[in-house]
Amino acid sequence: MIEIIAFDADDTLWHNERHYDEAKEKFKQILTRYHDPEWVESRLDATELQNLKRYGYGIKSFALSMIETAIQLTEGRINGNEVQEIITIAWAMLEKPMDVFDGVRETILMLSEQYKLLLITKGDLFEQEAKIARSGLGDFFDGIEIVSEKNPAAYDAIIKRHQVVPRSFVMVGNSLKSDILPVLEIGGLGIHIPFETTWVHELVPESELEGKDFIRLTTMAHLPALLASL
Amino acid sequence: MIEIIAFDADDTLWHNERHYDEAKEKFKQILTRYHDPEWVESRLDATELQNLKRYGYGIKSFALSMIETAIQLTEGRINGNEVQEIITIAWAMLEKPMDVFDGVRETILMLSEQYKLLLITKGDLFEQEAKIARSGLGDFFDGIEIVSEKNPAAYDAIIKRHQVVPRSFVMVGNSLKSDILPVLEIGGLGIHIPFETTWVHELVPESELEGKDFIRLTTMAHLPALLASL
Repeated sequence: MIEIIAFDADDTLWHNERHYDEAKEKFKQILTRYHDPEWVESRLDATELQNLKRYGYGIKSFALSMIETAIQLTEGRINGNEVQEIITIAWAMLEKPMDVFDGVRETILMLSEQYKLLLITKGDLFEQEAKIARSGLGDFFDGIEIVSEKNPAAYDAIIKRHQVVPRSFVMVGNSLKSDILPVLEIGGLGIHIPFETTWVHELVPESELEGKDFIRLTTMAHLPALLASL
Repeated sequence: MIEIIAFDADDTLWHNERHYDEAKEKFKQILTRYHDPEWVESRLDATELQNLKRYGYGIKSFALSMIETAIQLTEGRINGNEVQEIITIAWAMLEKPMDVFDGVRETILMLSEQYKLLLITKGDLFEQEAKIARSGLGDFFDGIEIVSEKNPAAYDAIIKRHQVVPRSFVMVGNSLKSDILPVLEIGGLGIHIPFETTWVHELVPESELEGKDFIRLTTMAHLPALLASL
């Protein structure tokens, strides 16, 4: 018996990665007179990954990584006005209107009448709360859990707190690494709804999926019918 | 009957403001050839306050505010190497060893045998989790709540989640604004343990304290005896 349906937020309920991609384009333009765009992007990706342990996820971390990359790539020649342009890219990201995927609102509304719904998102607490508020979807959820890392221990704590057994817990998300594999590990059910682009940090090699049972849907709109059939 | 004792973390259990003060000194040194230190500090304070709504609390926010202030104060003339020096200040803050106040560990250990203990801290989720882990105090708490803002609604949600009545909930902290007044507002008990310095953003005018009942202790070590006497 399924009791709780938990949803990832970024790129599951609404666009997120797109805003990072747009920001990277603007960043590359600022550095265009120093380096070619591919090199700038690969350096930025490397700095970001390296800084995850230092800063955690989110736009502020991304802003600091952009600035650090710009300094390195210009050997310190970048000036204050250009750094301000980079900061302004981050400001625009922090204020982006929420772009909720088609069919998400209806599906969430429908499921909220029958199940306990949770929102489980990793990343920056302040930024994620602001996005949930702006999305207008917060009220449909019985609980919102913002964790710094989506690992089996984090899911286990959530399940215990909500006093259900793992088998009655379903996680819906676009990331195999964060939303599906750790939930399978603790005995929950995973429903993968892939998104067009996946952040390089979230990619999982095929070999890690061997012998793993999970469901893959093309769209959130198919979720109520699937749940009814389980 | 008191059931839950909740503690603020920064400048209640361990030093925090001190690290910001040290960082500000280093920041003023970097800008010393552009402006006098008092002006630099007042501009930084203003930028920080203005950015709270944009970024939330924490070291990453502070880093971005330092950079922004440096750009403004140099009219964009600050160079990449100087910006990197500012980023390095933030890195040092993120790695500071935890400086737990005298008597705190013993008090927490003692109280944990008798009460349900919570840690309630506002700020950056990633940074606060890292600090709790480094402090070695995490295991003494039955729950850790990291909220983006400490207002009556946040405390109310915590109390409801832990299924106690407000009168059995005690909050211990150094900030009247964040730890005491909102808790009094929902009917809980507030125990104020002032710290030597209080961030300007957290100051409360005397007039707002009129008619408010709360307890003030000079040190955490007096807490067990006080609780026993209630």
